[in-house]
Amino acid sequence: MPEALPHLPAHLLDDLVLAALEEDGATDDITTRALVAPDQWGRGVFVAKDAGVVSGLPVAAAAMTALDEEVSFDTLVEDGNRVSAGTELAEVEGPLASILSAERVALNFLQRMSGVASLTRQFADSVVGTRAVILDTRKTTPGLRVLERYAVRCGGGQNHRFNLAAGILIKDNHLAAAAQLGLDDLRDVITKVRHAAPHTLRVEVEVTNLVQLREAIDGGADIVLLDNMGVEEIRTAVELVAGRAVVEASGGVTMENVRAIAEAGVDYISIGRLTHSAPALDISLEVAAA
Amino acid sequence: MPEALPHLPAHLLDDLVLAALEEDGATDDITTRALVAPDQWGRGVFVAKDAGVVSGLPVAAAAMTALDEEVSFDTLVEDGNRVSAGTELAEVEGPLASILSAERVALNFLQRMSGVASLTRQFADSVVGTRAVILDTRKTTPGLRVLERYAVRCGGGQNHRFNLAAGILIKDNHLAAAAQLGLDDLRDVITKVRHAAPHTLRVEVEVTNLVQLREAIDGGADIVLLDNMGVEEIRTAVELVAGRAVVEASGGVTMENVRAIAEAGVDYISIGRLTHSAPALDISLEVAAA
Amino acid sequence: MPEALPHLPAHLLDDLVLAALEEDGATDDITTRALVAPDQWGRGVFVAKDAGVVSGLPVAAAAMTALDEEVSFDTLVEDGNRVSAGTELAEVEGPLASILSAERVALNFLQRMSGVASLTRQFADSVVGTRAVILDTRKTTPGLRVLERYAVRCGGGQNHRFNLAAGILIKDNHLAAAAQLGLDDLRDVITKVRHAAPHTLRVEVEVTNLVQLREAIDGGADIVLLDNMGVEEIRTAVELVAGRAVVEASGGVTMENVRAIAEAGVDYISIGRLTHSAPALDISLEVAAA
Amino acid sequence: MPEALPHLPAHLLDDLVLAALEEDGATDDITTRALVAPDQWGRGVFVAKDAGVVSGLPVAAAAMTALDEEVSFDTLVEDGNRVSAGTELAEVEGPLASILSAERVALNFLQRMSGVASLTRQFADSVVGTRAVILDTRKTTPGLRVLERYAVRCGGGQNHRFNLAAGILIKDNHLAAAAQLGLDDLRDVITKVRHAAPHTLRVEVEVTNLVQLREAIDGGADIVLLDNMGVEEIRTAVELVAGRAVVEASGGVTMENVRAIAEAGVDYISIGRLTHSAPALDISLEVAAA
Amino acid sequence: MPEALPHLPAHLLDDLVLAALEEDGATDDITTRALVAPDQWGRGVFVAKDAGVVSGLPVAAAAMTALDEEVSFDTLVEDGNRVSAGTELAEVEGPLASILSAERVALNFLQRMSGVASLTRQFADSVVGTRAVILDTRKTTPGLRVLERYAVRCGGGQNHRFNLAAGILIKDNHLAAAAQLGLDDLRDVITKVRHAAPHTLRVEVEVTNLVQLREAIDGGADIVLLDNMGVEEIRTAVELVAGRAVVEASGGVTMENVRAIAEAGVDYISIGRLTHSAPALDISLEVAAA
Amino acid sequence: MPEALPHLPAHLLDDLVLAALEEDGATDDITTRALVAPDQWGRGVFVAKDAGVVSGLPVAAAAMTALDEEVSFDTLVEDGNRVSAGTELAEVEGPLASILSAERVALNFLQRMSGVASLTRQFADSVVGTRAVILDTRKTTPGLRVLERYAVRCGGGQNHRFNLAAGILIKDNHLAAAAQLGLDDLRDVITKVRHAAPHTLRVEVEVTNLVQLREAIDGGADIVLLDNMGVEEIRTAVELVAGRAVVEASGGVTMENVRAIAEAGVDYISIGRLTHSAPALDISLEVAAA
Repeated sequence: MPEALPHLPAHLLDDLVLAALEEDGATDDITTRALVAPDQWGRGVFVAKDAGVVSGLPVAAAAMTALDEEVSFDTLVEDGNRVSAGTELAEVEGPLASILSAERVALNFLQRMSGVASLTRQFADSVVGTRAVILDTRKTTPGLRVLERYAVRCGGGQNHRFNLAAGILIKDNHLAAAAQLGLDDLRDVITKVRHAAPHTLRVEVEVTNLVQLREAIDGGADIVLLDNMGVEEIRTAVELVAGRAVVEASGGVTMENVRAIAEAGVDYISIGRLTHSAPALDISLEVAAA
Repeated sequence: MPEALPHLPAHLLDDLVLAALEEDGATDDITTRALVAPDQWGRGVFVAKDAGVVSGLPVAAAAMTALDEEVSFDTLVEDGNRVSAGTELAEVEGPLASILSAERVALNFLQRMSGVASLTRQFADSVVGTRAVILDTRKTTPGLRVLERYAVRCGGGQNHRFNLAAGILIKDNHLAAAAQLGLDDLRDVITKVRHAAPHTLRVEVEVTNLVQLREAIDGGADIVLLDNMGVEEIRTAVELVAGRAVVEASGGVTMENVRAIAEAGVDYISIGRLTHSAPALDISLEVAAA
Repeated sequence: MPEALPHLPAHLLDDLVLAALEEDGATDDITTRALVAPDQWGRGVFVAKDAGVVSGLPVAAAAMTALDEEVSFDTLVEDGNRVSAGTELAEVEGPLASILSAERVALNFLQRMSGVASLTRQFADSVVGTRAVILDTRKTTPGLRVLERYAVRCGGGQNHRFNLAAGILIKDNHLAAAAQLGLDDLRDVITKVRHAAPHTLRVEVEVTNLVQLREAIDGGADIVLLDNMGVEEIRTAVELVAGRAVVEASGGVTMENVRAIAEAGVDYISIGRLTHSAPALDISLEVAAA
Repeated sequence: MPEALPHLPAHLLDDLVLAALEEDGATDDITTRALVAPDQWGRGVFVAKDAGVVSGLPVAAAAMTALDEEVSFDTLVEDGNRVSAGTELAEVEGPLASILSAERVALNFLQRMSGVASLTRQFADSVVGTRAVILDTRKTTPGLRVLERYAVRCGGGQNHRFNLAAGILIKDNHLAAAAQLGLDDLRDVITKVRHAAPHTLRVEVEVTNLVQLREAIDGGADIVLLDNMGVEEIRTAVELVAGRAVVEASGGVTMENVRAIAEAGVDYISIGRLTHSAPALDISLEVAAA
Repeated sequence: MPEALPHLPAHLLDDLVLAALEEDGATDDITTRALVAPDQWGRGVFVAKDAGVVSGLPVAAAAMTALDEEVSFDTLVEDGNRVSAGTELAEVEGPLASILSAERVALNFLQRMSGVASLTRQFADSVVGTRAVILDTRKTTPGLRVLERYAVRCGGGQNHRFNLAAGILIKDNHLAAAAQLGLDDLRDVITKVRHAAPHTLRVEVEVTNLVQLREAIDGGADIVLLDNMGVEEIRTAVELVAGRAVVEASGGVTMENVRAIAEAGVDYISIGRLTHSAPALDISLEVAAA
Repeated sequence: MPEALPHLPAHLLDDLVLAALEEDGATDDITTRALVAPDQWGRGVFVAKDAGVVSGLPVAAAAMTALDEEVSFDTLVEDGNRVSAGTELAEVEGPLASILSAERVALNFLQRMSGVASLTRQFADSVVGTRAVILDTRKTTPGLRVLERYAVRCGGGQNHRFNLAAGILIKDNHLAAAAQLGLDDLRDVITKVRHAAPHTLRVEVEVTNLVQLREAIDGGADIVLLDNMGVEEIRTAVELVAGRAVVEASGGVTMENVRAIAEAGVDYISIGRLTHSAPALDISLEVAAA
């Protein structure tokens, strides 16, 4: 259960939700306007059609209430809960027209976020009992990073640096650029970055082989990112590091190999597909005129 | 090949891309600032790592050039092209720091849009030779509907109504609401909608069984949406309609059953997963200091 | 009486109204600040100075309350009502300074929208008893289309397509462009559009003579727009169509000829001046310190 | 000819024009997309269909070029010029699809602004030879005040205070409020305002009779606004003021009585209908594929 | 005590405060999220650490409550009050996490505005008993002009023209430009400006010597701005004007010479450093878990 | 000389500068419009009136060119350069009216940023030869944090964490909150934060005495912030830490004591007044009609 639930502030959700409602033409829903009377009342229940982990109920609530203050939204489970097919997630009540016009936007957020949470939960469950923590990456949907990182936390993962301004990660392209400036010793690169960057940040270095790894450790890297290594190589790397740095693995992580990677002793496993390829969780809103 | 390529106007892309760059902290990329000199030049190539259909090159171009006017972006293939693993998609050249800081945002758009196009292409290929056209739905990512609909066109699909304001679709919830007002004959419902809505719109009615279908046809529905019907029932429905309305099928469509549905004679097949569950296409930017 | 009243959502009005108040310097009203004490209370009544149809009371309410939550606004008539000179439309009460600072913005919206509604009502009254429905066009004030379309509904008109994305209308320029591509048979043009556009849209074709009209009907146009035809030609056109398409007339419609056009049998008459040339309805706010 | 032409800065026009194009769905013009090829070239001429004064060519230019940098726009007359029916105003050339999609927005601005300029010109011509200057008011279209004030200048008028923050005007409601605070001598009111407001502003007082007028002059009003007075009363008022203050007349000004008011000797005549009730000038874009 | 307190409208403060909270990452405060439970309650007191004049309590209130509706904010003094070191200014209570996350933004506004008010108060106190009024200038912090002008009023100063659109001030650069056009008599320049500008504005002319001053007075300048003159020259200038224009002094005003300038008889003294160089007033928020 | 110069991206500057120009009414500069012809050309030079460090030339350039593409801006020194009174900083040339209307906004940015840079330079010069680095804080002007941090770098300082989302700093309020939850051992607090926060961040702990300092070091704090300690206590603290953590001092730092603090051996000294109380550097634009 995520401790982060209160950290989706109302005004942020309002902005996202109003933009989405406008995109969907929700304030000019011609079908509903033609058939539903302004004073008709309705009730609806959000129901999971598949098993998974729910995430995004505050966003769905914001979407359902943004068009109409008279709509009420009551959660029946909490974000981060595991649900089975058929579980009722939340109840909505108010002017029927408003409910129908906001339905799709609420579901679009809720299904996507729950999809991310559900996939994260599967990876997190796979490494239970090891020291490894599942992390997201910056491979998120443009505009929705705050929500998707929240969904990862709902699924039992943790968050990597928020963005380029909030953490240091020296990658191969940076090394090549530094070499071109005559700086080809990884230890010197680390020193240079440490001096230039805010002192509140650790220095993380991406390495693709054990030679680089040794240089990174010698140079005082706080974190090493083992990029696309096989399980055996990861195991060797962890032994080589021997606690002198935090170890993160990334690249090519699947449900099949994630446990083996975790058991190789890494501290963190970061997985792009948590956010770039999670299928939506099937959820529907079952509405009844009241 | 989509005829729609010119219809992603520059100012829209700029807005989306600048928001994403800001979200990613691209203007405060501390790692790059520490290691790459302002006057260092670089080149990079976008390369597909898997086979698929490319979509989003104009968006990637906007992202790569938004930070820095000196960056040039040249496409090597066109949106809508099928590519194999290893295909070079585009070339970027300019100040290396700007390229590195914009890389992730460019890829986040390009991978997602190409994922949508690739999945659409698979469905479209599956129905080749039938009359059926593959359609998207309103189950898109909040904020990205214009881009995802474009990606669907790149993959050989067509677009359903843009949003609630741009088309009429009478669903079960609307019927229930109308019944509550004493309007329980589907033909009367259709008449009421036709009078209230802009005369430029067709009237589409979602039906779940053949009884409803008959009423919809009798009532003069322009389009009938067969919701979650099996292939046999769809075939019967098509016969029953006998050309008096456009026929669209939706619900539970998979790569396994899509051809059978198409061969049952429908005009359109709309598929939510094109946009809500397409996995990203793996693409990377291979950069070299120049 | 418009069924559309609830469809001016609060957040849209807030955006429009806050922008207008800022434009008018309402938060820095130096005259009022100098002369009215913060705790002075006031009341005011919006009064029609001419006969007409009122439209925009929810907008005026939003304007009067946007600066100050303590201001209350009570409507005395409803949007869509016919009013005579001297009719009291709404009552406002609260801090006098806030009322005075918002007065002009509230009136600017209310007078314009009521002007549109009043002119529409005159046209609509002129065709009573015929089948013809009065429609607006896309010739609206930039930024105010939603409000002006609403005002047209208040005046007894209906709305044409919202914009270029929400409806198909093939005009002479499109035909010329198609001909240049070798597509000079109107029937082929219609077929091409039908395949490219969302299937939820009808195809409307503008014709300027009976030859074109015949081709449009043969090509399966759903709607024909008779552009700038005289009454006699319209009558002939209606007979020629013989129910095979919806018939809309436009161009040169005045209060003098609108009934004749209606009696010629068209389904719709669209009139640009409803929104581009309607004079404001004279309304004033009579304020008294309370 | 207005000296103000350069004072419609590009970024302001861009914001207004992009918002209007978005409102009109110009980037998703389905009819044009279906029929016009991306590489098809076109030319068009803006032609006045009625006599009047043109205003808004820079806005039309911004609208025509906002979608597509390849579109060129050349003016054939200048804002502020009198034109007769049939006069060609500007020429546009470029990708035909872009021209067609932006046409309506360009015309909506141009027709409205030219309507304001034309009506202003009529009033200004009516007072030629007198000392009176025609002024606008704050009764402008919400969101378009900058453009409409510019149009008034194009028509030979001048601008009143921009908004509540940019000028002082003591009206009857302010007097009533001040009286309630025990300040019922108009001279004291003027003194109070003069102390509270920026010293760069003149103090203007609205008066409805000669008693008030005397008090205003005694109190040192810089400008007196004669509200809704008849021509005789205005003449008396001008004599009474005898050059001790600037004199402005307003209220009930029509083309019939404007000259008489001017000849009564006032310095300024402010007219709300210039902006709230000017009919659009009829202008069309005649396009040809090139 | 400023009469202007009610003139910081809620929506303006909300916009400024939400932008500042976003800038400060207040909705993603990782330290607080890790250590403070969502249901932990807290109280805090804003305390002045130095003597001065307080300004900005409504802004601090907006900041503290923007993240969380459950936070309450009670003022213990009013804006414009003089406070000594140790004075409690306001009390805040609510969810502790929300208080901690908003603290810095609330203080950043409050300290800056109170710094401006305190410096203004020192200048205003220095001229007590003279006719001179202390004014601000346009040398404000970009984006914060409304707040800083308000702070000046809190400190006993008054405001100069809001901006370039709200007042006339002819400076040396304008004179040089006019001369280049052949207009080198200051009296003609004044006449030209008076005709071109809104009649609601006074004409202010900056002069740097007594020759220019005489021309300005002869030309009918309403206000003369004595730029960077010494005290003796100012005294002579005031005598020369002899009440025929308002007199403002500016340039090089310090706490040391301000009284002498005032006693030289000017009406206004405008001082850039009130807003561009006021040191922040030291204020802290003392929080206790409740 | 700051390596950060290229990191003020054009679109950010444009947004800030356009908002400031709008705030200043620069597009409706009535004085300039009255006196300067549209085709009048001018030149100007930005000149420092006091010695200091310049910062903000790219922002001034953006301001001078935002209104008018024809204005050119050429720098004569670079940001970060020390300048003496009389130094010419940049040259501007183009339409004179545009230069005059943008002058104040350009100067408001340039004077403030150069003020920050100049004060930072004084502090940085004071600690030359020690290991100490001068840092800014989060006590920046709302809305201008990016610019002020850049100015600090121009003055030879470095930047602390950007905001609450980009670094961890455990303060006394957090400790009190944790204690209330039963977590009163500082070591446990550090552990808890380390688990909850992104692994890319160091953990910084604010301590006010040596007892707390010992606990922080034992708990594995990466950075300790010595809050408001005297020089002697700081020296003792540095010895106690003995290289096991980075040491930062803050609170009550003045030009008088900064060198002593630096010589006490700390790594960083963070100073709020760099941004909240730096007086503006006096700079003027000397314009000549060309």
